[in-house]
Amino acid sequence: MATVEPRILRGFRDYLPREMISRQEMLAAVERVFHRYGYLPLMTPALEYSEILLGKYGDEGDQLLYRFRDNGGRDVALRYDLTVPLARAVAQYADFVKPLRRYQVAPVWRAEKPGRGRFREFVQCDGDIVGSAEPLADAEVIQLGADMLEELGVEKFRIRFNNRKVLSGLMGTAGVSRQDEAGVLRTIDKLPKIGEEATRKLLAEENRLEAAPIETIFQFLGISGSCREVLARLADFFDDGSIGKEGWRELEAVHGILEAVGLEDRITLDLSIARGLNYYTGTIYETFLEDLPGFGAVMSGGRYDGLIGVFSRDDVPAVGISLGMDRLLAGLGELGLVAAKLSTASVLVTVFAADTAALSARVARDLRRAGIACELFPQFSKLGKQLRHAERTEKRFAVIVGPDEASRGIAQLKDLAARSQEEVPLDDLARRIRDLESDSGSV
Amino acid sequence: MATVEPRILRGFRDYLPREMISRQEMLAAVERVFHRYGYLPLMTPALEYSEILLGKYGDEGDQLLYRFRDNGGRDVALRYDLTVPLARAVAQYADFVKPLRRYQVAPVWRAEKPGRGRFREFVQCDGDIVGSAEPLADAEVIQLGADMLEELGVEKFRIRFNNRKVLSGLMGTAGVSRQDEAGVLRTIDKLPKIGEEATRKLLAEENRLEAAPIETIFQFLGISGSCREVLARLADFFDDGSIGKEGWRELEAVHGILEAVGLEDRITLDLSIARGLNYYTGTIYETFLEDLPGFGAVMSGGRYDGLIGVFSRDDVPAVGISLGMDRLLAGLGELGLVAAKLSTASVLVTVFAADTAALSARVARDLRRAGIACELFPQFSKLGKQLRHAERTEKRFAVIVGPDEASRGIAQLKDLAARSQEEVPLDDLARRIRDLESDSGSV
Repeated sequence: MATVEPRILRGFRDYLPREMISRQEMLAAVERVFHRYGYLPLMTPALEYSEILLGKYGDEGDQLLYRFRDNGGRDVALRYDLTVPLARAVAQYADFVKPLRRYQVAPVWRAEKPGRGRFREFVQCDGDIVGSAEPLADAEVIQLGADMLEELGVEKFRIRFNNRKVLSGLMGTAGVSRQDEAGVLRTIDKLPKIGEEATRKLLAEENRLEAAPIETIFQFLGISGSCREVLARLADFFDDGSIGKEGWRELEAVHGILEAVGLEDRITLDLSIARGLNYYTGTIYETFLEDLPGFGAVMSGGRYDGLIGVFSRDDVPAVGISLGMDRLLAGLGELGLVAAKLSTASVLVTVFAADTAALSARVARDLRRAGIACELFPQFSKLGKQLRHAERTEKRFAVIVGPDEASRGIAQLKDLAARSQEEVPLDDLARRIRDLESDSGSV
Repeated sequence: MATVEPRILRGFRDYLPREMISRQEMLAAVERVFHRYGYLPLMTPALEYSEILLGKYGDEGDQLLYRFRDNGGRDVALRYDLTVPLARAVAQYADFVKPLRRYQVAPVWRAEKPGRGRFREFVQCDGDIVGSAEPLADAEVIQLGADMLEELGVEKFRIRFNNRKVLSGLMGTAGVSRQDEAGVLRTIDKLPKIGEEATRKLLAEENRLEAAPIETIFQFLGISGSCREVLARLADFFDDGSIGKEGWRELEAVHGILEAVGLEDRITLDLSIARGLNYYTGTIYETFLEDLPGFGAVMSGGRYDGLIGVFSRDDVPAVGISLGMDRLLAGLGELGLVAAKLSTASVLVTVFAADTAALSARVARDLRRAGIACELFPQFSKLGKQLRHAERTEKRFAVIVGPDEASRGIAQLKDLAARSQEEVPLDDLARRIRDLESDSGSV
C-alpha cells in the first residue's frame, strides 16, 4: 500500500479527546433532561430515499443534500435534519402511543459553506411532541430547551419566539400573494444578519414588493417591548377570524404557560423570527447566546402540523425543538466556557519489568472491580517514562508493583498531585485511593 | 406537497422506543467500561475521502463502500469501520500522547446483503491501544471486550483467538506464495460457516492448491484442545526464527496474561480464525454467543501494526477490538434477553381542564426540579383517556390537580400499580412518590 496523505473533508471535524470528553458529558446532560420530561429515544437511519427529504427544506435545502445513487441504483441522501425522518417514521408505523414524546441525538449532514460554528456534519439534539395541537405542547418544548441549556451550564441565552400564522397574517395585510409568501419570509429571516436597509432593498428588488407593503411589513416588525406589550399592540393588527388573529391567540397561550413555569426572563417575542425551513406552520423559535451577537442560533424549532400528512392520509400535529450541539460547543469554545479534559481515569498502573506484566494487569483488574477507573501502561518502559505519561495524561495517581512489593502483598502508591508516596496493602489500594480523592475535595 | 410513501432503505432500521431504550442503556454500559480502563473518546467524521478507505478491507470490502461524488466533485465514502479513520487521525495529528487508548461508539455503513443480524448501517463500539507492540496491549483489549459483554449481562460467550503470523507461518510451511496468502486465508475464514468439505473444495478449485498443502492446512487446523494443549502442540509445528514461531510466542504471551486476569474459561485458541480484513498483522479474535451457533461474531478485532504507516512515515503499532452493538442486540433479541421498556419517566401529570394547563405545567416543573422524571399530558382530554395513556406508556403514577386541589395546595396521586389513590400536599409530592417507589422495591 502506497502512502496516502492523511486529511479530512472541508467542513468536517475530528473531535480529539481534549474536546470530546466535554462533548460527551454535554450529550449525556442533554439526554438526562429528555428523560426528566419523559421523552423516548427513537433512532432513524442516516440514509433515506431522497424523495422522503426533497421539498421539505426549501430549494436551498434541496441543493445542500448529500444525495447520490447507492450501489443498487437507488436515489438516496444523508439526512438533513431529524424532523423529516421522524415524520416519515410516525406515518410508517401504526403502533406509536400518541401523544408521543420522542428525542434523537444524532449527526445530520448539509453541504453548506463551512464557517464560524457552521459544519457540514453536526450533531442535533431533537425533542418533539407528536399528536398534540395545543399550545401546552409548544410551550413544553421551549421549556425543555431552556432546561437543556441550563443543565449544560449556559447562563446567558435568550429564546426568541414568533408564530408563522402571525407572519401569514402580516403577508395578507401587506397584500403579498400566497405564492410569494415563502420568498418574502426568507428575506425577512435575514433581517438580523443584514440589517434594515439591505432587507428593504431585497424586498423591493428580489421579492418585487411595492413601497406600501414594505412599509406595512416594517411597521409590523417595529413592534417591540416586553412580551405582554408586543401581544397588546399586536392584538389590533389583525381582524377577528383572520389567520393572523389565530396566530396571535396561540402566541398568547404559549406565552401564558411560559410565564407560569417561570421563563419570562428567558424569552422575547420577536416578530422578525421567520425560520428558513418550509415545513413550519405555527409557533417558531430561535435561541441565541447573549454574549455572542451575530453568532447565529444554537437551538431552534417550531410547530409543523402539515409535515406528517405528507407521508400519510392522517394528518398529525407536531412540534419540536433542536439543539445544535456542535454549534453550541463552538460558541462556548469562543467564550472560553468549555473545559478541556485529557483523562477518563485518574490512576495509572505501571509495569515494573517486562516479566511482571501479568502481575500489573491483575492489580489493574482488581482496582477496576473495586470501582476505580485506571489505565494500565501497556508495555514495559523505564519507570520515569511511565510517570511522565501519567502526568501528560493528567493522572492523579501512579501505582507501582514490582516483584518485591508483590511478594509482600503491597504496592507503592504515588500521589502525583501531592508529590508523595506511600506503601499500601494491595487489598486496601482502592479504598486508600478513594480516601485521598475525597480528602482533596476532587470529585 | 404530494403524498410520499413512507419507507426506509433495505438493510436499514428505525429503532423505535421499545427497543431503543434498552439499546441506549447498553451503549451507556459500554462507555462505562471504556472509562473504567481509561480509554479516551475520539470521534471521526462519517464521510472520508475514498482514498483513505480504499484497499484496506480487501477487494470485497472496497465493493461494499457507500462511495459517491459530493457536490464539490470529491470522491468520498461513508466510513466502513472505525479503525481506518483512527489510523488516518493518528497519522494526521502529532499531539497524541502515546500509548493512546481511544474509543469510539458510532455507526458504520456497508452495502452488504442484509441478513440475520446483518445490517447496512450498524453501530460499532471500538477500543484501541495505539503505540504499544506488546502482548500486554493485545491481552488488554480482549479483557476489555470480555468486560463489556459481562457489563451488558451477556453470560455465555466465547472469545476465539489466533495470530496472523501463525497463519503466515502455516502458509509458508504449506508452500502458499505470499501473493496467494490473503485469498487462502479468506477461504479458511469460511470454514466454520461452510464446513470442511466445501472449504477443501474451494482451496483446490478457487485457490488452486495441490493436495499436499491442503493436507498440511487441515493437519494444522485439526490441532485443538485447551489453550495450553494447542500451544504445546503448535510449538513443534514451526522452526525457530520463523514468522510462525514469532506468532506462537505472541500467542503464548497473550494467553499468559489472559490467564492471569482470570479469563481462561472465556477463551479458546482457535487456529481457524483468520479474519477477512486485510490490515491485521498479529493477534486476531472473534467472539460468539454460545447459545446461537451459526449466528456470526458479535465482537472481533486484532493487531494492525502496518495500518498507520499507510498514512505516515512513522509506523505505529496498534491493536483494537470492536463490539457490533446492533448484531449483538439482534442476537440477544433472538435469545429473548433484551428487555422491552416503554417509558423513561414513571409519572404522568394530567391536565384537568383546558384552562388549568399552566397549573399542571408548574406541578410537572416542580416534580422535575425535585428529581422526579415526569411526563405532562400535552393537551386537555377526558381524564379516562389520559389515564389510559399512562397505562399504555407504562407509567406507575398519575398526578391529578384540578382548581379545587390547587386552591387547597394538594394533588390526587394515583398509584396505577397498586390501584390506590391518595391526597398529597403539593410540597410533599416528590417525596411521597419516591417513598412509594422504594417501598415496592422498584429501582
